[in-house]
Amino acid sequence: MISFENDYIAGAHPQVLNRLVETNLENLSGYGADPYCESAKDKIKKACAHPEAEVELLVGGTQTNLVVISTMLHDHEGVIAAGTGHINVHEAGAIEYTGHKVLALPHTDGKLMPEVLKKYLADFYADETYPHMVFPGMVYISHPTEYGTLYTLDELTRLSELCRSYQVPLYLDGARLAYGLMSQKTDVTLPDIARLCDVFYIGGTKAGALCGEAVVFTRKNMPPHFITSIKKRGALLAKGRLVGVQFDALFTNNLYFEIGRHAIQMAEKLKMIFHQKEIPFYLESPTNQQFVIFDNAQMEKLRQQVGFSFWEKYDKDRTVVRFVTSWSTTEDDLKKLEILLSELK
Amino acid sequence: MISFENDYIAGAHPQVLNRLVETNLENLSGYGADPYCESAKDKIKKACAHPEAEVELLVGGTQTNLVVISTMLHDHEGVIAAGTGHINVHEAGAIEYTGHKVLALPHTDGKLMPEVLKKYLADFYADETYPHMVFPGMVYISHPTEYGTLYTLDELTRLSELCRSYQVPLYLDGARLAYGLMSQKTDVTLPDIARLCDVFYIGGTKAGALCGEAVVFTRKNMPPHFITSIKKRGALLAKGRLVGVQFDALFTNNLYFEIGRHAIQMAEKLKMIFHQKEIPFYLESPTNQQFVIFDNAQMEKLRQQVGFSFWEKYDKDRTVVRFVTSWSTTEDDLKKLEILLSELK
Amino acid sequence: MISFENDYIAGAHPQVLNRLVETNLENLSGYGADPYCESAKDKIKKACAHPEAEVELLVGGTQTNLVVISTMLHDHEGVIAAGTGHINVHEAGAIEYTGHKVLALPHTDGKLMPEVLKKYLADFYADETYPHMVFPGMVYISHPTEYGTLYTLDELTRLSELCRSYQVPLYLDGARLAYGLMSQKTDVTLPDIARLCDVFYIGGTKAGALCGEAVVFTRKNMPPHFITSIKKRGALLAKGRLVGVQFDALFTNNLYFEIGRHAIQMAEKLKMIFHQKEIPFYLESPTNQQFVIFDNAQMEKLRQQVGFSFWEKYDKDRTVVRFVTSWSTTEDDLKKLEILLSELK
Amino acid sequence: MISFENDYIAGAHPQVLNRLVETNLENLSGYGADPYCESAKDKIKKACAHPEAEVELLVGGTQTNLVVISTMLHDHEGVIAAGTGHINVHEAGAIEYTGHKVLALPHTDGKLMPEVLKKYLADFYADETYPHMVFPGMVYISHPTEYGTLYTLDELTRLSELCRSYQVPLYLDGARLAYGLMSQKTDVTLPDIARLCDVFYIGGTKAGALCGEAVVFTRKNMPPHFITSIKKRGALLAKGRLVGVQFDALFTNNLYFEIGRHAIQMAEKLKMIFHQKEIPFYLESPTNQQFVIFDNAQMEKLRQQVGFSFWEKYDKDRTVVRFVTSWSTTEDDLKKLEILLSELK
Repeated sequence: MISFENDYIAGAHPQVLNRLVETNLENLSGYGADPYCESAKDKIKKACAHPEAEVELLVGGTQTNLVVISTMLHDHEGVIAAGTGHINVHEAGAIEYTGHKVLALPHTDGKLMPEVLKKYLADFYADETYPHMVFPGMVYISHPTEYGTLYTLDELTRLSELCRSYQVPLYLDGARLAYGLMSQKTDVTLPDIARLCDVFYIGGTKAGALCGEAVVFTRKNMPPHFITSIKKRGALLAKGRLVGVQFDALFTNNLYFEIGRHAIQMAEKLKMIFHQKEIPFYLESPTNQQFVIFDNAQMEKLRQQVGFSFWEKYDKDRTVVRFVTSWSTTEDDLKKLEILLSELK
Repeated sequence: MISFENDYIAGAHPQVLNRLVETNLENLSGYGADPYCESAKDKIKKACAHPEAEVELLVGGTQTNLVVISTMLHDHEGVIAAGTGHINVHEAGAIEYTGHKVLALPHTDGKLMPEVLKKYLADFYADETYPHMVFPGMVYISHPTEYGTLYTLDELTRLSELCRSYQVPLYLDGARLAYGLMSQKTDVTLPDIARLCDVFYIGGTKAGALCGEAVVFTRKNMPPHFITSIKKRGALLAKGRLVGVQFDALFTNNLYFEIGRHAIQMAEKLKMIFHQKEIPFYLESPTNQQFVIFDNAQMEKLRQQVGFSFWEKYDKDRTVVRFVTSWSTTEDDLKKLEILLSELK
Repeated sequence: MISFENDYIAGAHPQVLNRLVETNLENLSGYGADPYCESAKDKIKKACAHPEAEVELLVGGTQTNLVVISTMLHDHEGVIAAGTGHINVHEAGAIEYTGHKVLALPHTDGKLMPEVLKKYLADFYADETYPHMVFPGMVYISHPTEYGTLYTLDELTRLSELCRSYQVPLYLDGARLAYGLMSQKTDVTLPDIARLCDVFYIGGTKAGALCGEAVVFTRKNMPPHFITSIKKRGALLAKGRLVGVQFDALFTNNLYFEIGRHAIQMAEKLKMIFHQKEIPFYLESPTNQQFVIFDNAQMEKLRQQVGFSFWEKYDKDRTVVRFVTSWSTTEDDLKKLEILLSELK
Repeated sequence: MISFENDYIAGAHPQVLNRLVETNLENLSGYGADPYCESAKDKIKKACAHPEAEVELLVGGTQTNLVVISTMLHDHEGVIAAGTGHINVHEAGAIEYTGHKVLALPHTDGKLMPEVLKKYLADFYADETYPHMVFPGMVYISHPTEYGTLYTLDELTRLSELCRSYQVPLYLDGARLAYGLMSQKTDVTLPDIARLCDVFYIGGTKAGALCGEAVVFTRKNMPPHFITSIKKRGALLAKGRLVGVQFDALFTNNLYFEIGRHAIQMAEKLKMIFHQKEIPFYLESPTNQQFVIFDNAQMEKLRQQVGFSFWEKYDKDRTVVRFVTSWSTTEDDLKKLEILLSELK
C-alpha cells in the first residue's frame, strides 16, 4: 500500500544503511567515543559554518527535547512554546516529567510570533506576583512547525534578539529541519540557525536515518558533564556508532540536503495534485507536511488504499488529514494517489 | 496601616490561638498521631455529613495541591484546570515538579464550565494520537475561584457527573472555602461538596489558622501509605498538633463558618462603599475577594495608606486591584477606607 | 504520662508562644516579607558571627533538607551521607523524589569520618567509568548525628577542607543543633559551623518552636530565586510570620542556647540514672538523645508508664531504645523515671 | 587492534543486520505497530514458554531499567538491589531521577542472596518507624550479574517465593541474559525465568543487536497505558521496526542462543589462557565476563595492544581488569592475546 502517513515509514536512506553495513565489523569504543561520531560532529559544525559549536548525538526527538530542556533550565524556570508545540501536545508530558512547566502561548499557524513573545515577557516581569510563578527560562520553537510552516529570517532574528535581551536561550526543534532548509519558500539557512539559536537539533529520524538526532550548542553552552545527564535520562546509547555512522553518512556529499530537496519536490507535486482535484487545504505549508480537508466519507474510503494521518476534526462532516513526503516517496506513489483521488469523486 | 491585602495578614483567630496556648504543655505524639488531630478529623467528617470520609491535615495550600494531585494521578495522566487556576499560575510549577502536566482549559470568570470540560474530554479520546498525549486524570477546580466566583450547585453537579462518567476524580481546592460556603449568593453546602467531589480541601490558613489545610477524601480513595507519601514531599509536620489543635478549634461551635460569615459581611459593606464611590468592578464576586479598577495615579496614592494587591494591568492607564476581607477585618477598617477613597477624588 | 519519646512532644517554649500571642493581631505581609522574619535573620547572622550569611526560614526538617539539597546540586550530582544519615533512612526517599541519589558511606557512631570521605572522593575520580556514575556534589552531615554524637572541631575542619578542595559544598543538618552546641563535650561553636560549612540549618522544631528551621548560606551561595524554588516544592508558608516570630524569640536573650543547656543538663542526669540502674548504653552520646539496651520484657513493662522510642533490635532478647530530653523535661520527670526503673527489676 | 573491551564493540550480528537491510524499504507504521515487532514478541513468548507474557521493546538497558522500575513502583516505594547492581552504580542515578530510591543491600560476588533479602524485609516491617522509610516495592537482580556470576535455580526460586510472599515484584535485568542462559554452569532456563520473575528483560544490545532490549511481563502486570509512559520518558522509538526486526532475527533459528553459546566457548578458552599464563582471577565467573588481576605495569603495557576494561584497583600495585567475549570474538583474537600475554612476562 502506498503511504504518506509520515516521513518515517521506511527504514534508512540506502546510503545511510550502506555505511552501517560497511562499518559493522569494526571494533569501536562505546558511548559515542568512536571516530564516526567525531567525524559526524565535525561535518555538522562545518555545515553550520559554526566552528565553535558543540555537538552531541541522541536517539529520538522527544528524548532530545527533554534532555536539552531539562539540563538547560534552572530550577525556577519553565520553557515557553506555542500551544501547538510538539513538547506541549504530543510528547506525553515528557518535559513536565523532568519537573518543568511548558508555558504555552498562542500560535499563528503553529508559529510563536515575536510580538506575542515580547508581550508575554514584558507582562511577566510587570506582574508583582512573579516570584510565585514559573519564570520563562527558554523559548522553544519548531522549524518547520507541527503545521509544516516556517519562520522567516526576520522572525527568527527578532525572536533571537528578544531572547538575548532577556538572557533566555532560544531552542529550535529541527525534527524536520531538512525539509525546512530545502523549502522553496525559505530565506533561512543552517548557518543562520546556528547564529541565531542558542541550541537546536538536526533531526535524523524523520530525514533518512533509522534513528538519531544531532543537538548543536552554539555558544559554548553545553551543560557540564552532559554525557552523565544523558545517561541519567536513559538516553545514552551503548553503541553510539549507530547514530554516529548515520549522521556521518547524512552529512557526506550533502545527502541530508538532498533528502530534503527530494521530499520538497514530491510535496510540491502533491500540492498540485490536491489543487487539481480541488481538495481544500487547511493551511498553506511550504514543507513536506500537507494538511487537507476531506469529507468524512471520502476519508474513510481513501484510507483503505493509501496511508495518511488523522489530524483533527474540521467540523461534523469533515476532517483535517495530513499527507507527508520523504526521501522514500516516489513519482509512482504520487501517480497512484492521483488515480485514487480521481476515483474518489 | 489598614490592610485588605489578603486574608492572611493577621495571625490566628483568637479562639484558635487560645487553644494552642491551652494545650501547649501537653505531651503528645508526633506526626498527627495525637487526640487533637483525631478530634479535628471527626468534627470535619460530621460537618461534611460524610461519615466514610478520610481526612488528613497538611500545612499549606500549594503543598496540599501537590501532595493530593501527585499521589492520585497515574503515571500517564495530568490534571485539568482552568487556565486561571492557582495550580496553573501561582504555584511556581509545583505540580509539574511532581512530573505531571497541568492541562489548562479556557475559563469563565475563573470557572471551568461543564460544557468546556465535556468537549475537551470527548475530543481527547476522539483524537487518534491520544496515546502520545497526557491523559486527563483529574479535574481541579477552586471554590471560590481565584476571582472570588462560585460554582452553582447545578454546575458542580454536572462537573461531578462528567468526571464520574470518565472515571476521573474531581478535586476542589477550598483554600477559601469558608467564604464560599457563607456567601449570600451560594446554593452549595459543605455536604454537597463532600457528596460531589472525590477529594477536596478545607483551607485553614486563609480562614483564621496560622497554617493548615484539611484534605477530605470522600470515596475511600485516600492513596495507600499516604503518610509516607506526605513525608516524601517534605510535608509531614513533626508537631502535627499544631494543625490538629487549630482545626479542632475551627470546627468547634461553628467557628469556621462564623469566620466566613463575618468576612462576607465585611465584603458586602466593602462592595457598597466601592459602589458609592463609583469605583468600577472588574467582575462580580460573591465572596471575600473584590476586584476593582483604579486609575494608576489613584492606585499609587491610595497604596501609601492602605494595603491591597496588584492583580493585573487593565489598560495603559488603569489597573485591576484586589481587596480582601477576613475574620480580622473590622468596621473601623471599612470606615477608614471610605474616608481615604473620598479623599482620592 | 511522663515521656522521653522525643524532643517535640510538647508545644512551643512559653517565651516563643508568648511572642506569637503578642504579635498575633498585627497586619503583616505574607511569605516572609515581615519585620519579624527580618529581625530573626539578623539575630541569627549575629549569633553566627557571620555578617555575610544569607538566612531563609522553612517549616520542617525533611522539607529543609530536600529544598537545600535539590537546589544546590547540579543535575549530574548526588549527595554523600553517612549510611545512618536522616536523609538516607528516615525521610521516605525525599531526596530521591527530587531526582538525586544519596550516596551512602560507612559511618562511625553515626558520623561520616574525614578519612572515609577522602578515600571515596579519590576513588571516584580514579575510576575510569565515573561519567556513568552519580558525581559527589554535596556532603551532608548531621550534628548532632542521629545517634546523638558530635563532630570534633578537628573532624569538622578536615571535612570542610576536603570539601573545599573538591569544590563540593558541606551541608550540616542542625535539626538538634541546640543540643550539639550546648553539649558539655563539644569544642564546636556556632561561628565555627558558619565558618566551616557552606550551608547548614538551625533546627527550631526540636528546640522549642512549634515548627521552623532556619537555613544559613555562608558563602553568598543561596540559590538564585530561592523563594520561587521553595514555593515550587510546596514549602513556602503564607503566614511566614509564624516561623519568623518564633526564631526571633529563640534568638532573643540566648533562649535557643538556654533551651539546649537545660536539655543537656537533664540528659546528664538521665545518664547518671541509667548508670546507677546498670542499664547498659548502646553508645556514648554527649547530647540529648540517649540510647540504652533493655530486655524485651523490661521494655514492654516500662512502656506502659513512660514514653520512649524503639530504635532497633539488639538481639533476640534485647532492644535498643532511645530516651530524649528537651526544654520541657523536668526534674520531676527524671525522678518518676528513676522510680519506675527501680520497680522494673 | 583486538579488543575484549566489551560485548558491544562490534555492530550487529550479520544475520541481524541482514534482516534490517532486507526489510528496509517496506512501508511500516511507527511506534512499534508493525508486523516485525509483533512477530518478535510472539517468538519471545514462545522461547519463554509463557504464552500469557506481555512483551515490549525498548532501546537501551538503563532506559529499560528506569521505565520498568518507575512504572511499577508505587509512590512510597523504592527498589532493592545488590550494592553492586548496575542501577545502583553505573546508571548515573537514573532510577533516582524518576523519584525512587535504590535500597542497596550487601552482595555476594554481585548476587543478592535470598537470606540477605529475607532479613531485610523482616527487619523493615519490624521497625516501628517504617512509615518514615522507603518501602521495599521491587527486587532488582541482574543475571548474569555485573561480575558475570549467575543465580542457581534454587536461589532464584527462593528469591521468587520471598518476593511473592511480600507481594513485591521480582525484576531480572537480563542485559547479558544470552550468556547466562548458555553458560556451561547454569541450571536456569528462559522458561524458569519467565515462571519465577514478575518482569525481566532480554538484552539485545550486548547480544548482537545494534540496540534494543525486550521487556517481558509475566503476570498480566504490564502497567496500563505503558506506551504513553514510555513516550513520557523519551523512550519511544518512532521507527519501532529498528528494534522489532532485530529481535525478530535474534529469535529466529535460535540465533540469540547461538550468540550466547559462541561467546561462552570463547570465554572458556580465554579462561584457559589466563590459567596457563598464571594470571590470577579476581573471582570465578561462568559467563562471558572474566575478571583478572594484573600488575599495573603489565596492564599499561598490554593496554597498548589489546582492548579491555579497567574494573577497580586491587591494591597499590595491582588492578582488576575485565575481559569480555561476544559473538564477534574469534579464535584468532584469542591466539593474538595468548601471544601478547607470553610477551608480557
